[in-house]
Amino acid sequence: MTHGPIRLTSAAHARLRPATEARITGGFWAARRHTNATVSIPQGPRKLESAGNLGNLRAAAGAADTDFTGDFPFQDSDVHKWLEAASWQLADTPDAELAGEVDRLIALLAAAQEPDGYLQTHYQVKHPGRRWQDLRWGHELYCAGHLMQAAVAHHRATGRTALLEVALRFAAHIEETFGPGRAVDAVCGHPEIETALVELYRETGERRWLDLAAYFVDLRGHGSLEPGFERGGESVTGGAYWQDEVPVRAARTVTGHAVRQLYLLAGAADLATETGEGELREALERLWSAMVSGKTYLTGGVGARYEGEAFGDAYELPPDRAYAETCAAIASVQFGWRMALLTGESRYSDLIERTLYNGFLSGIGLDGERWLYVNPLQVREGYEFRPGDQSARRTPWFRCACCPPNVMRLLASLPHYVASGDDTGLQVHQYACGRYAAGGGAVTVAGDYPWDGRIEITVDEAPAGPWTLALRIPPWAATAGLDGGTVERPADGWLRLRRVWSPGERVELRLPLDVRVTGADPRVDAVRGTVALERGPLVYCLEQTDLPPGVSLDALALDPERVPVAEHRPGLLGGVTVLRARGRVRAAGGGAGWPYGAGAGEDAVDGPAGDPVELTAVPYHAWANRADGAMRVWLPRAGGGAG
Amino acid sequence: MTHGPIRLTSAAHARLRPATEARITGGFWAARRHTNATVSIPQGPRKLESAGNLGNLRAAAGAADTDFTGDFPFQDSDVHKWLEAASWQLADTPDAELAGEVDRLIALLAAAQEPDGYLQTHYQVKHPGRRWQDLRWGHELYCAGHLMQAAVAHHRATGRTALLEVALRFAAHIEETFGPGRAVDAVCGHPEIETALVELYRETGERRWLDLAAYFVDLRGHGSLEPGFERGGESVTGGAYWQDEVPVRAARTVTGHAVRQLYLLAGAADLATETGEGELREALERLWSAMVSGKTYLTGGVGARYEGEAFGDAYELPPDRAYAETCAAIASVQFGWRMALLTGESRYSDLIERTLYNGFLSGIGLDGERWLYVNPLQVREGYEFRPGDQSARRTPWFRCACCPPNVMRLLASLPHYVASGDDTGLQVHQYACGRYAAGGGAVTVAGDYPWDGRIEITVDEAPAGPWTLALRIPPWAATAGLDGGTVERPADGWLRLRRVWSPGERVELRLPLDVRVTGADPRVDAVRGTVALERGPLVYCLEQTDLPPGVSLDALALDPERVPVAEHRPGLLGGVTVLRARGRVRAAGGGAGWPYGAGAGEDAVDGPAGDPVELTAVPYHAWANRADGAMRVWLPRAGGGAG
Repeated sequence: MTHGPIRLTSAAHARLRPATEARITGGFWAARRHTNATVSIPQGPRKLESAGNLGNLRAAAGAADTDFTGDFPFQDSDVHKWLEAASWQLADTPDAELAGEVDRLIALLAAAQEPDGYLQTHYQVKHPGRRWQDLRWGHELYCAGHLMQAAVAHHRATGRTALLEVALRFAAHIEETFGPGRAVDAVCGHPEIETALVELYRETGERRWLDLAAYFVDLRGHGSLEPGFERGGESVTGGAYWQDEVPVRAARTVTGHAVRQLYLLAGAADLATETGEGELREALERLWSAMVSGKTYLTGGVGARYEGEAFGDAYELPPDRAYAETCAAIASVQFGWRMALLTGESRYSDLIERTLYNGFLSGIGLDGERWLYVNPLQVREGYEFRPGDQSARRTPWFRCACCPPNVMRLLASLPHYVASGDDTGLQVHQYACGRYAAGGGAVTVAGDYPWDGRIEITVDEAPAGPWTLALRIPPWAATAGLDGGTVERPADGWLRLRRVWSPGERVELRLPLDVRVTGADPRVDAVRGTVALERGPLVYCLEQTDLPPGVSLDALALDPERVPVAEHRPGLLGGVTVLRARGRVRAAGGGAGWPYGAGAGEDAVDGPAGDPVELTAVPYHAWANRADGAMRVWLPRAGGGAG
Repeated sequence: MTHGPIRLTSAAHARLRPATEARITGGFWAARRHTNATVSIPQGPRKLESAGNLGNLRAAAGAADTDFTGDFPFQDSDVHKWLEAASWQLADTPDAELAGEVDRLIALLAAAQEPDGYLQTHYQVKHPGRRWQDLRWGHELYCAGHLMQAAVAHHRATGRTALLEVALRFAAHIEETFGPGRAVDAVCGHPEIETALVELYRETGERRWLDLAAYFVDLRGHGSLEPGFERGGESVTGGAYWQDEVPVRAARTVTGHAVRQLYLLAGAADLATETGEGELREALERLWSAMVSGKTYLTGGVGARYEGEAFGDAYELPPDRAYAETCAAIASVQFGWRMALLTGESRYSDLIERTLYNGFLSGIGLDGERWLYVNPLQVREGYEFRPGDQSARRTPWFRCACCPPNVMRLLASLPHYVASGDDTGLQVHQYACGRYAAGGGAVTVAGDYPWDGRIEITVDEAPAGPWTLALRIPPWAATAGLDGGTVERPADGWLRLRRVWSPGERVELRLPLDVRVTGADPRVDAVRGTVALERGPLVYCLEQTDLPPGVSLDALALDPERVPVAEHRPGLLGGVTVLRARGRVRAAGGGAGWPYGAGAGEDAVDGPAGDPVELTAVPYHAWANRADGAMRVWLPRAGGGAG
């Protein structure tokens, strides 16, 4: 019985099912999860206290006579997401102190809840009498969804019903309020309740919640929300922003606010999984493909525009103004995992791996307490920093604090995303060291991935007859080592080892971790003439702090003749493998004048390049942990003329 | 006595003075101004009526019992700017019908004005009792500034005082309200009143308006406005947005909202011109240089970010998401012209010419009635169009209609920006056909520039002794033809012809209109590996509509081996010179999958390129006049491998 975010019903039309047991016990992710468990999650209640979220609950409960604190109506959702994170953590490792904090916050939520089940302090404390009147910005169903997810997590983790009862009371109130002929016949400006309701159905077995989820998914895209225009002339948010422009089944591409889009698609994937509806599934496959082919950064980050925190046009992927919100990366993982289970295809977990190791993990500092809201792929020397959520500098907490507890809940539930099972056996999606049971067997994964390509998989348990251990071979591995030999990557990415297994039998997989020099489709105009360095699942970047004094990152080009070399540095950034490469300092050329002219652009690609510089590239996810300064993933290639 | 926007006092510390007579009588700009006079300006009152602006005035006057119409508090400013445009037009060409419309709108404004001088319908009709309470967004001084500019224009054009009296009553009310110890000691969220007050001082001779302008310029940058955060988490507008982060004299670069920044700098330039203050002048020179060296598009457009309609970091100049608001181009011309007069340096008019012919003029359709608010340098095939001000499609009017009347007033006052005078003689800044008097003499400019490089300047009047005719030689002209010979471009750009002139004497200047293949400084990352085509002051672009069927603009690269050829097409786009070039269709390469991989980027710069295609580039300013579709200024260069 899985303790993770998805527990399919027995009727679900999924090709794969989540593992019934999943523990990460060592290696790369265990270290990150340790920081999450010992730093990030324990700090949560203090952060929520000082940001006013808990005070809002006390005010709603009548236990305090304070004003509503916070700039957004969705302040409560930070509490809900933290509770979800803490619950997954408790499912993993009992912790009396944490359990006590969880109980305290649940009691606060229960006390704050209205007798009719309604619970959102923004409307209870600040705007009484105005509930359900601003569907576009009110985020009431959004908060309700996060509450439901937290309640499901808490129930799965502890078996206790205190929070589930709160969520069910709210859900019943929503059911009475929404729908044709009821008080409100419109969707929420921020999808989230859809996926939550499906999980509430899974947890309780009550079909009504699945029906309500279907109602919201079906209603969306028909203009039940008015397109809105914000003050100041700077933000034109049409229906796409809140995913109310085109019905999911008719949509051709991902668009609008990236987190809204992907939470909606996660919910629609849950729905398609439980109903088996083919039209919806096809739409989801189409939308995922559109996202991957032209709207995803090399890091797995999504959302190209600050304006509306939105997906851009296809191939509009600026590295400097990449928005790539941490929450959007998380939402991409959530959507992708649902598609992986629904379809059984490995490509979804290919992107999940890329996202986890790069565009997601960059969102949290190595210390577990400084965060990035946006995750650009380039920061220039002259970067004009201003305090704020959207700055490319690590920050202890945000005014809009959606990302930190979102990171916490994904890290706390990460074991859930590693393995799956079906009638034939067990599939390993991610090479996170630990023990996973699924498909009638159990395995232990060991090794030092992603620093080392050797992965040891021990079959701890297997049924008596033939049983399949399926290993995902990432698309960057044309071949892989297997025990003594070498195998080609199967076309569908699944290396299926079907045999009769003896418990304790061991397989050694060797993924090739050669440094890759990666280019981009020419339609990705913003990175024309540049390359990025990758190794295994990791995208690398250069940071100003690693350059010799006096050398500007903005004046550097990569020498493509020298193949970069990997070198492990145990003392750097908690222990990372760096890539050593050679660069060239571009001839000064451009002064401070008009930057356009005959031949002005040639230096970058064909022209002469100057002195060689030894470069050290670090994993992108570890950037901005030492010093502020310039950073870039995409590196101009020094011209052939460079000696 | 000039009839244009700037009339320096005799005490002004300017190196150059505006022409005392200026008429554009033929050629390129006369045609554009004819459309402005016969289509755009006459339509104004109807547009203002249907958008509700005039109804708001009637409501404020008590002549109608209607609600306030419009999404913004600054709706009145559209009326003011139209009145300014109509006044400059009347200064140029008497027109009884237009004069009647002007009188009608002035009467409406006078009727709407409160007894104490206040005038802004948003607060009069919609939020009575709340004036001066929302300095950040209220735009009250902004509207007052545009009212003053309109009043000055009307007074200069007609000698009548009806509108000037309205403006002076409002100015007096502002003077009583603002200042240390008075009701309000803060600046307006949108600069504009600064330049308007200096001009009011110039028009009336009353020093108090100069002092009030100085007060506002000096107060700005000291945080009298709270940094603001907008709803939805998408817009972080710190103090830079409303130019209240750093005092002008201390600023190192242009930043924040581009129009706000440049209106402020125009006002500060007015102030420095009248006071002669060196520190302010140095700051303005520094800021202009920072703008030009790293924050200006090839088209002269400025403002790289949709988010906050703002300047980006230095060298952050994406062609696809260029905001480059039409109003920002206009503001750049206004700031630049003040600096040209203040310093006498030609570089300001170099940029003005570039901006006028490209990033400004693109803002208005050839028909004079369809507009662009944003002026991108690239639109992809998959461009996701949504109705709205910020869409890259021509639109009949905008919800936020700041740009159209702004274009009208610049075109109507354009003669003012062509020539200047000083003690030595007359300077020709722009080669617009017409007659200009300044510096004790008068000239007539003739020719077919920018299509043809031959420009004929006739000295109609000159003093008896030696007198200097100074001709600006653009920086793209290393040499120029002069009568029978050739001259090198002087280092300071001014070709000074000093001699004793006989009235009727003629000079022939020949500017070289060779096609230029222009690159960008490698720090402008977004256009690495591409080139743009220019000829004279014109930037060119490719439009999808000019390509053979089946050829996608997004798959094209320019063949750099073939020198593009200019060809005049009298029947195209009202008569333009096109550039014929050769392109290559890129090998299909990228399908619909993951767009990154080894060698994926090479096609764009070094790799093989496919079939040759004949290309026709049109002037950028004329784009989007025939069909929607892809467009690009920066063209990838086909690799050397292309045979």
